[in-house]
Amino acid sequence: MLISKLGEFGLIERLKKKIRVDSSVMKGIGDDCAVLEFDRKNYLLATCDMLIEGVDFTHRTDPYLIGRKALAVSLSDIAACAGRARYCLVSLGLAANTPVSYVDRLTRGILDLAKRFRVNVVGGDLSRAEQLTLDVSVLGLVEKNNLTLRRGAKKGDIIFVTGELGGSIRGKHLKFTPRLKEARFLVEHFKPQAMIDISDGLAQDLGHILKEGNSGAFIYEALIPLSGDARNLKDALYGGEDFELLFTLPLKSAKRLLRTDHRFKPIGEITDKKHGLTLVNKAGRLSRIPMKGFRHF
Amino acid sequence: MLISKLGEFGLIERLKKKIRVDSSVMKGIGDDCAVLEFDRKNYLLATCDMLIEGVDFTHRTDPYLIGRKALAVSLSDIAACAGRARYCLVSLGLAANTPVSYVDRLTRGILDLAKRFRVNVVGGDLSRAEQLTLDVSVLGLVEKNNLTLRRGAKKGDIIFVTGELGGSIRGKHLKFTPRLKEARFLVEHFKPQAMIDISDGLAQDLGHILKEGNSGAFIYEALIPLSGDARNLKDALYGGEDFELLFTLPLKSAKRLLRTDHRFKPIGEITDKKHGLTLVNKAGRLSRIPMKGFRHF
Repeated sequence: MLISKLGEFGLIERLKKKIRVDSSVMKGIGDDCAVLEFDRKNYLLATCDMLIEGVDFTHRTDPYLIGRKALAVSLSDIAACAGRARYCLVSLGLAANTPVSYVDRLTRGILDLAKRFRVNVVGGDLSRAEQLTLDVSVLGLVEKNNLTLRRGAKKGDIIFVTGELGGSIRGKHLKFTPRLKEARFLVEHFKPQAMIDISDGLAQDLGHILKEGNSGAFIYEALIPLSGDARNLKDALYGGEDFELLFTLPLKSAKRLLRTDHRFKPIGEITDKKHGLTLVNKAGRLSRIPMKGFRHF
Repeated sequence: MLISKLGEFGLIERLKKKIRVDSSVMKGIGDDCAVLEFDRKNYLLATCDMLIEGVDFTHRTDPYLIGRKALAVSLSDIAACAGRARYCLVSLGLAANTPVSYVDRLTRGILDLAKRFRVNVVGGDLSRAEQLTLDVSVLGLVEKNNLTLRRGAKKGDIIFVTGELGGSIRGKHLKFTPRLKEARFLVEHFKPQAMIDISDGLAQDLGHILKEGNSGAFIYEALIPLSGDARNLKDALYGGEDFELLFTLPLKSAKRLLRTDHRFKPIGEITDKKHGLTLVNKAGRLSRIPMKGFRHF
């Protein structure tokens, strides 16, 4: 059997089964970050993301934006766990005939974003590669009581997103702002029950929250904040790389959030599992939709 | 200018100059690991290494050994700083038509070595890639008083290596044992002044120690433990990927080590900077040799 048949998530499940970890690992494979014992007050968060030419960007993409994206996608994972990003390591695979000016610009993209979010670039590796390849690992910290994972959504919770969805195809995937500030605001003033970043499309990433919470959801077409760059609702539901946060709040907190801050848009509610993922269209008609989205294989 | 002209170390120096880090970073780019503030007793060590098909292994290499090597090279970096390896993240770039059995075997290579050294595999990433690509990040801990870096070698120190050199070309680079145990033994019973792992050849890696210590060295051909797989001394001096430890001890400790343990071989001594790296051949003739070795560009 080929991995194209098993699929990305099939492969991850297969790997997960083989792995044993010790008691210092609070959460291993299967969330936005690994969560590790650090000190009495904090957990250490660790995450990595690999970007490859022809998959995550093209040879025509501005190298500044490539470098920026390589760090931003991992920062988005730290945000999804409500952490503060602290350190990063950068592995870079390059062709030998790459101009130094190209690497300078790529590096500038990484360093400018690192500076903005006070991330220390502390190490890395260089190698020869035919396709330009970047792998960025980020370490972060989160207070134990602020850690937010994919699991924890409860029936009756309101589902929220930051920003607009579906615009990635027109370039947002290269320019998005990782929602670190929004995540910190949320955990400091509200208590999201479950949170994830939308990297593979709303339907698939909400699917992770529903699976972990053993629940279902209603989402309302009229409430989904569609980007002006989206061609249609499908771009928001199944298109990858919006890198917005998706989270749930109990009704009472949800009402309070809606009164105090307009950056966060309610799009639906957590239901009993039997509803699966149900889309309510603008005419009020219900339809079950697949929890699918971008997959590498 | 192309990076092939600037070279690997030229590129690293160029990047280093642009990077600012905060006071929690004890050591950033430029040693085997990044060294980060952790708690009162320990530093956190972080390192990553990228392995690419056609550079670090071929399409004919047993995938078990590819997986094993991907973790082993980063463990060797933790050893060089005298740390204990604790966690790893694995990013994997694969062709969609890779057989699942191939990935299983590659994973087994990683997990078997992880188990042996009690490393928790806590996360990773999957992507599509034309060349098989692995990037493994490892986190470790080291007691503050046991941290050993490239800097610190003093005139009169004796230079030691673990194991034999120059055999990598015949396959050792796929099967070496990261010297974590040896490093821990050394810091617990002796006090290496400076340490590095030999990843790019003895001459180049000793060069890093000499540069950091602002010193020179005499090494003795008759003392260099040549692998039976080495074709000649050049394989040991300039061949990459032995992954043995190279360290220095003051004369008194060196004598004590030689009396008590035969795993460590003395190969020379640290001198004044003016001698550069001087090789003493079997006939007693001195010659300056270049501090060069494997370079990616």
